[in-house]
Amino acid sequence: MEKYQFLMDLVIIILVANIGGYIANRLNQPSVLGQIVGGLIAGPTFLGLVYDSAFITDMSEIGVILLMFIAGLETDVDELKSSGKASTLIALGGVIVPFVFGAAALYFLRPGLDQLEYIYYGIILTATSVSITVQTLRDMRCLKCRSGVSILGAAIIDDVIGIILVTVVTGMVSPAGGASVVWVIMKIIGFFLIAIGIAVVFYKILNKRAEFFNRQRRLLQAALIYCFLSAIFAEEMGVAAIIGAYFTGVVFSTTHFRNQVSHEVQRVAYALFTPIFFVHIGIAVNMPPFTWSLVILSLGLTAAALIGKVIGAGFGAKLSKFSNQEAIQIGLGMMPRAEVALIVANLGLEMGIIGQEIFTSVIVMVLLSTIVTPIALKGAFHIGKLEEVA
Amino acid sequence: MEKYQFLMDLVIIILVANIGGYIANRLNQPSVLGQIVGGLIAGPTFLGLVYDSAFITDMSEIGVILLMFIAGLETDVDELKSSGKASTLIALGGVIVPFVFGAAALYFLRPGLDQLEYIYYGIILTATSVSITVQTLRDMRCLKCRSGVSILGAAIIDDVIGIILVTVVTGMVSPAGGASVVWVIMKIIGFFLIAIGIAVVFYKILNKRAEFFNRQRRLLQAALIYCFLSAIFAEEMGVAAIIGAYFTGVVFSTTHFRNQVSHEVQRVAYALFTPIFFVHIGIAVNMPPFTWSLVILSLGLTAAALIGKVIGAGFGAKLSKFSNQEAIQIGLGMMPRAEVALIVANLGLEMGIIGQEIFTSVIVMVLLSTIVTPIALKGAFHIGKLEEVA
Repeated sequence: MEKYQFLMDLVIIILVANIGGYIANRLNQPSVLGQIVGGLIAGPTFLGLVYDSAFITDMSEIGVILLMFIAGLETDVDELKSSGKASTLIALGGVIVPFVFGAAALYFLRPGLDQLEYIYYGIILTATSVSITVQTLRDMRCLKCRSGVSILGAAIIDDVIGIILVTVVTGMVSPAGGASVVWVIMKIIGFFLIAIGIAVVFYKILNKRAEFFNRQRRLLQAALIYCFLSAIFAEEMGVAAIIGAYFTGVVFSTTHFRNQVSHEVQRVAYALFTPIFFVHIGIAVNMPPFTWSLVILSLGLTAAALIGKVIGAGFGAKLSKFSNQEAIQIGLGMMPRAEVALIVANLGLEMGIIGQEIFTSVIVMVLLSTIVTPIALKGAFHIGKLEEVA
Repeated sequence: MEKYQFLMDLVIIILVANIGGYIANRLNQPSVLGQIVGGLIAGPTFLGLVYDSAFITDMSEIGVILLMFIAGLETDVDELKSSGKASTLIALGGVIVPFVFGAAALYFLRPGLDQLEYIYYGIILTATSVSITVQTLRDMRCLKCRSGVSILGAAIIDDVIGIILVTVVTGMVSPAGGASVVWVIMKIIGFFLIAIGIAVVFYKILNKRAEFFNRQRRLLQAALIYCFLSAIFAEEMGVAAIIGAYFTGVVFSTTHFRNQVSHEVQRVAYALFTPIFFVHIGIAVNMPPFTWSLVILSLGLTAAALIGKVIGAGFGAKLSKFSNQEAIQIGLGMMPRAEVALIVANLGLEMGIIGQEIFTSVIVMVLLSTIVTPIALKGAFHIGKLEEVA
């Protein structure tokens, strides 16, 4: 059986994804939520039916990269351009307020820590994880609507800000190992410029040999190579892989291959990889033994993280003349934190900037934010619809 | 980069599969051959662009399981039934002759070994690996023709015979650890009976809730769960996973969901998993330093393995009243050895039944048989077509 453990894991995950999604839909919740909670229940935290493994982690990594690539392909660039100013304001609000709220909440709950620890915790809260929001917005057919586009735009910007801030802080801690801020920023700008160049070349090749790529799944395989290479290249340049995949998706969405590529990639992604990603979030949680002190810390910090994002991003949206309704939707849509927050927290733990207790609270925050967001977002859109009708 | 090594491997493999397949097609060879040779060139044996990894191995395992499941779904059962006697004769001929040829060739080239080593080497040669043949037959649109069906039927039977023989010999070596022959045979029969039962239940569920399964890729995911569980269950019962997948595919091919399930599974399988499997065969080869003595041994044993199968299976086909042309096609189609031969050889090496030198020669034989078969098979069918035309 050992040899086929990965296959058994796959079977359980596909089952969990379907059952969880089905129950969530029945309860009028997005299927993503059902898949995450399903993973939490089937995983080591509760039933222990399936454990995290390198294979499942890699498969889910492919899932989130494809998900972001598709989200990029489906982005309406004209809409994004016209929402560029709004996205920037939302991102800035969503970076500054959670940073202040997070650092302050940690100071209130655990006074006397190193100053750097407060700052670093604030930074952990900056980067929004749009994958949950993307899926929820898709379920509600609002991926291309005004709030949806602003959320995605803002999430790209706050990821970049978060990455720059992390580089600054870790650079301060280990001046030898850390890269210079200017160099990091140059690499990020370099990535976006080169990615546009690559997209142009890819488009030209497809266009020139359209007949060749229309046969034998070649378009799909070319798109997968393009998407994966973009993700790898982004990571190499210091930009998160999923941001790279999303961005090249956006660039490619301006070509007339957009719909065909999106359609082909979705077939493969949604069949296997994307459900694995969401179930894996639940599986990967490995809850440590709880103490009341830790519970209070975790809930306090989570509240600061979520409320800070709603207020900050919502305020940015209001400044951009969104309605109250839309500002709340945008604030809620920016709440989830996942991969980037965990990666940053893990780095801080390894470098000794934050302690184990705070790291655990980040896991709780990631979990709660991904569970709460789809419910809250769905509620906010539902109320919006009722008002429209009234 | 380390974190995304698996993604870079995937990119290289998809590229190699496409380039290799394209060149092979240009040279009028099946794309499988191009993919295997491409893997050999890109892999550690030559360029070292991509190395074997757990992730790639697992992905290719999924590829071969899906490939066999699809082959099963596409099998014409009525044709298989009417070819049952022929398949049995082909399988028996293809077991006995290579067994005798292999043992004799080894005795001729390396006299004075333990008697058990000759017998074990003969057994290594019994199990045909149909995956290469399946793909080649598909390329030539002869998966459902009379020779194609007989080859697939015979390959199932000779795998079962091979597994029984291995169990007998390993049981002789370690009487404590080895299972009794009767028990092994009972488990194999048990698998086939239970697999039929599971297929009936699966069909009834699909039929009853047809509307439910027609939405949101549920049919595909149900089919994947069914296929993977069959493979795992087969392995648990002592039948190779790919045989389990093929057999449940055959059972399921009698239902009216057959075409839809086959279509859905093919989409996912051919996009990613199947090409990975064939490129992986080439990558997994890790050629040891060669000596002339080893070259002669390897080529001699390979000749015995290939010629033995052509003669044995071809003779079985002639007994079943196939034409000379078809008998040659069937004999050639039965030549390839791969997973089962490697697994059996590996087991023998671990148990000290065969030596390192013979193990290496098995790797060479597997490689040559997979490269030679598509070329030979294509040649044999081509001549056949010319005769038909004439």
